[in-house]
Amino acid sequence: MENAILLISCPDRKGITASIANFIYKNNGNIEHADQHIDKETHTFFMRVEWALKGFKIPKDKIYSKFMPLIRKYSMKCQLHFTNYVPNMAVFVSQYTHCLYDLLIRTKEGQLNCNIPIIISNHSSARKIAKDFSVDFFETPIQKDNRLTQEKKQLSLLKKYNIDFIALARYMRILSPAFIKSFRNKIINIHHSFLPAFAGSSPYKKAYKKGVKIIGATSHYVTEKLDQGPIIEQDTIRINHRDSLDDIITKGQDLERTVLSRAVKWHIERKILVYNNKTVIFD
Amino acid sequence: MENAILLISCPDRKGITASIANFIYKNNGNIEHADQHIDKETHTFFMRVEWALKGFKIPKDKIYSKFMPLIRKYSMKCQLHFTNYVPNMAVFVSQYTHCLYDLLIRTKEGQLNCNIPIIISNHSSARKIAKDFSVDFFETPIQKDNRLTQEKKQLSLLKKYNIDFIALARYMRILSPAFIKSFRNKIINIHHSFLPAFAGSSPYKKAYKKGVKIIGATSHYVTEKLDQGPIIEQDTIRINHRDSLDDIITKGQDLERTVLSRAVKWHIERKILVYNNKTVIFD
Amino acid sequence: MENAILLISCPDRKGITASIANFIYKNNGNIEHADQHIDKETHTFFMRVEWALKGFKIPKDKIYSKFMPLIRKYSMKCQLHFTNYVPNMAVFVSQYTHCLYDLLIRTKEGQLNCNIPIIISNHSSARKIAKDFSVDFFETPIQKDNRLTQEKKQLSLLKKYNIDFIALARYMRILSPAFIKSFRNKIINIHHSFLPAFAGSSPYKKAYKKGVKIIGATSHYVTEKLDQGPIIEQDTIRINHRDSLDDIITKGQDLERTVLSRAVKWHIERKILVYNNKTVIFD
Amino acid sequence: MENAILLISCPDRKGITASIANFIYKNNGNIEHADQHIDKETHTFFMRVEWALKGFKIPKDKIYSKFMPLIRKYSMKCQLHFTNYVPNMAVFVSQYTHCLYDLLIRTKEGQLNCNIPIIISNHSSARKIAKDFSVDFFETPIQKDNRLTQEKKQLSLLKKYNIDFIALARYMRILSPAFIKSFRNKIINIHHSFLPAFAGSSPYKKAYKKGVKIIGATSHYVTEKLDQGPIIEQDTIRINHRDSLDDIITKGQDLERTVLSRAVKWHIERKILVYNNKTVIFD
Repeated sequence: MENAILLISCPDRKGITASIANFIYKNNGNIEHADQHIDKETHTFFMRVEWALKGFKIPKDKIYSKFMPLIRKYSMKCQLHFTNYVPNMAVFVSQYTHCLYDLLIRTKEGQLNCNIPIIISNHSSARKIAKDFSVDFFETPIQKDNRLTQEKKQLSLLKKYNIDFIALARYMRILSPAFIKSFRNKIINIHHSFLPAFAGSSPYKKAYKKGVKIIGATSHYVTEKLDQGPIIEQDTIRINHRDSLDDIITKGQDLERTVLSRAVKWHIERKILVYNNKTVIFD
Repeated sequence: MENAILLISCPDRKGITASIANFIYKNNGNIEHADQHIDKETHTFFMRVEWALKGFKIPKDKIYSKFMPLIRKYSMKCQLHFTNYVPNMAVFVSQYTHCLYDLLIRTKEGQLNCNIPIIISNHSSARKIAKDFSVDFFETPIQKDNRLTQEKKQLSLLKKYNIDFIALARYMRILSPAFIKSFRNKIINIHHSFLPAFAGSSPYKKAYKKGVKIIGATSHYVTEKLDQGPIIEQDTIRINHRDSLDDIITKGQDLERTVLSRAVKWHIERKILVYNNKTVIFD
Repeated sequence: MENAILLISCPDRKGITASIANFIYKNNGNIEHADQHIDKETHTFFMRVEWALKGFKIPKDKIYSKFMPLIRKYSMKCQLHFTNYVPNMAVFVSQYTHCLYDLLIRTKEGQLNCNIPIIISNHSSARKIAKDFSVDFFETPIQKDNRLTQEKKQLSLLKKYNIDFIALARYMRILSPAFIKSFRNKIINIHHSFLPAFAGSSPYKKAYKKGVKIIGATSHYVTEKLDQGPIIEQDTIRINHRDSLDDIITKGQDLERTVLSRAVKWHIERKILVYNNKTVIFD
Repeated sequence: MENAILLISCPDRKGITASIANFIYKNNGNIEHADQHIDKETHTFFMRVEWALKGFKIPKDKIYSKFMPLIRKYSMKCQLHFTNYVPNMAVFVSQYTHCLYDLLIRTKEGQLNCNIPIIISNHSSARKIAKDFSVDFFETPIQKDNRLTQEKKQLSLLKKYNIDFIALARYMRILSPAFIKSFRNKIINIHHSFLPAFAGSSPYKKAYKKGVKIIGATSHYVTEKLDQGPIIEQDTIRINHRDSLDDIITKGQDLERTVLSRAVKWHIERKILVYNNKTVIFD
């Protein structure tokens, strides 16, 4: 029971929805989900449409080319996905393992429709966990001088394992612009603060010093500007004066794993469109 | 800059979205919002579509009849609305006035696109408030024996003031089936609990006795079964052992007014479809 | 049924709690609430203790002097309050009136145990509201050159009306250091963002541009540094890509009034201690 | 750096706090946390006090007997605990393993200060997980006729492993009154609904049918009445019409593990007092 998904953005004009719906209907597809959004500031049209391929007249490998006239007509940016494809996610992790565990368990339990063939870390602390979940583990310790060498090694691993996208599950190293460029809008980071508050290092400590009454976590696509990429999801939790820094960290970690896993889920389900350094999340 | 809105439900079939989008496109309408949903259990198709009337070829008063062939073809239940029509809301209230105040202020500040020409109460406590906001006020005290007589009077007032829908803003009298029937899916109640928990009277007291750690409020359309109508919106807030019954009531009242005003807003914006004693809320 | 309240902070030592509890017990007081907190970083002891004055052996006007030996012994900072005293709150407001309305209604309904004898504004938009609630209203329009003159007038009004503390209910003018100094920790502001994110002007616009998925509001005591004073309360609400700037403002205003009213309530109930530019909130 | 904790409830009288604080002070203890609460309906006094044992004049094993005169004087119910004692928790589980994983990971990472020496299940699905975390695993499948036999076996295992308390981590079997009696207020269940709504079986299905807009989870101590024991913690999450039953289950599972782990944490930290089938949670 495979479905096809089109993710489309283009300048707004009359007739776009009708054209897309007709394309699907005339080829005997049944739309299961359709959601559109118009950004009134920039007059941009966004759409996610998902239809059943059962009985669809165009074979999968011809859909994109058959749809091409509409792409040209409306100057669309367009992605085509199929729900039977299970993407490969690499998880990058440092010494904190709560987010890694969360992704592994959700994947095992079928909540995240992806494979995790590889875990990459600058620490050894996740090695045993990788083994328990039968995932290959590679340690690429990064010091001052060897980042580019290690990234080269990482990129070669990502290629070898056919990695589609990366989750930085509290990975505490900054990626080079070249690395980011090769996985544009395909690297999901979890930052342990309510961005744009407390960007950079030690956000929990900063929150504690500031005396905020609520802390947060933010998942975003990684761009060249640290902690400035398009925000995918955020959540918050209440703290009070009794909470020590350790209590805050514990509460925050619950947020981190929830927020990261939602972002990963929506990425897998092709529900995210990036524009203007912001995201449209279709639901 | 008027828009038209179609709210549609029908058995799911191929081509419904295409047919609707074509109807709008061929008559030179530009879709501003389109949202659909398919209930997989009952194979029901739901859609809310809103398009700009500027340049639309069909005059307003002919749209429904021109759309009729599609209604017949797909066995649609269909509502047609226009955004320039500002509906008239009656507010029913008893002695608590926080929800009434909230609706009056939001209407005055333009958050709720409706008129409030009339307030009806079984108490006199809201009389001064009605006067401050220049709204007509009628007191229809209801005792054991006079409910139907008073309802007759109320219905006559609602007719006189061209009332489109009713908000029960903590109105503590039960409406008769006949009254409800004459405003089917047009009476919005706020119940001061997280339904289905604590239906009926004194929900805060019951919550206090039970020792729950969170309380809630629920807005729903009124049906013949007390507190059992289709739920429109709910929200919750945390309490603890220090909260007295009075504290719980105070916290709960904040929920009540927020939850009621959201339901009223969505009703005005034609974002609610009722089916199977549940609601679809388009957003 | 009057109670006395002591709010105490001092360097932590053995025996403080025992000394305070003994002082109350030996003079025949019954403790109704007692809550303490120790800041482990600075080794500071904080306590709020409330006891029934019925049968208490020391008359109200002698309690402080009789307690003085303990203040000296432990180098306490100490406030003594009585629950029968109803404080006078001045509300400062500009053109937005939702927070003003909220404070007036809560006070009228008995949720806030204070008087509001005066509203001060740099606009005329709240004049009618003040009249409806029988509160004196003064317009002190502030332009570039006249701030200090107008503040002098305001301070004179605050004195005349025996004002104990001030709520800035979306008051859009910056107070001078001299003004702030004369009401140290007695001016409560509501800022319409989740501080420290989006301090300064137009926070909703900044949040919209940034593409955050959650917005917030923050109440804090006013200090000389703009939007940097000790945070009393914060709350957040979820937004999404469909929310226009206007939608964000509407959602945010619900937060503003809730968060401001909580801060005012706790201030009235003497539940707030300020230290290190942070707050302890006893509950 | 060991602390002692007293958990006290008794009829309210003057002088209780002073007596307890004096007992600790005169024996050279330093109070680190003290929190009290008075239930005004039943005139009951509740207190949790924690003090440093360093320098305390009474040896640990004599504290209770030295405190006995105060217990008698005020008719206290009293528990004495020491923070260096790490309790043994047994986890009962059926086929769903997300809560089990959560407890194991939090314990491993030091968030829960307990040991998990044993997992008991009526299924085999957790066997591999138990092995990965080096925990002994016992399968006690329960059918119609063998509950009491299997419970006897379970009780014998709990004794052998010196179990202090039990977490029912989505354990889908009902315990006998005799079993419950032997672990009174020491069995923590997680129910996958916002109690008292949707008690009993299949709460997510019931919530889906009802069309609620928010779902919840509830942790409580187990009593003889199914899903009626004193509530320790609850939390809620928003759902909408797009959420299928599977989506609701996924969202709910996030609540379940968070809510259960908080209850377990507070139980370990001796922050819970049960009275009147409700709980006081000291924070």
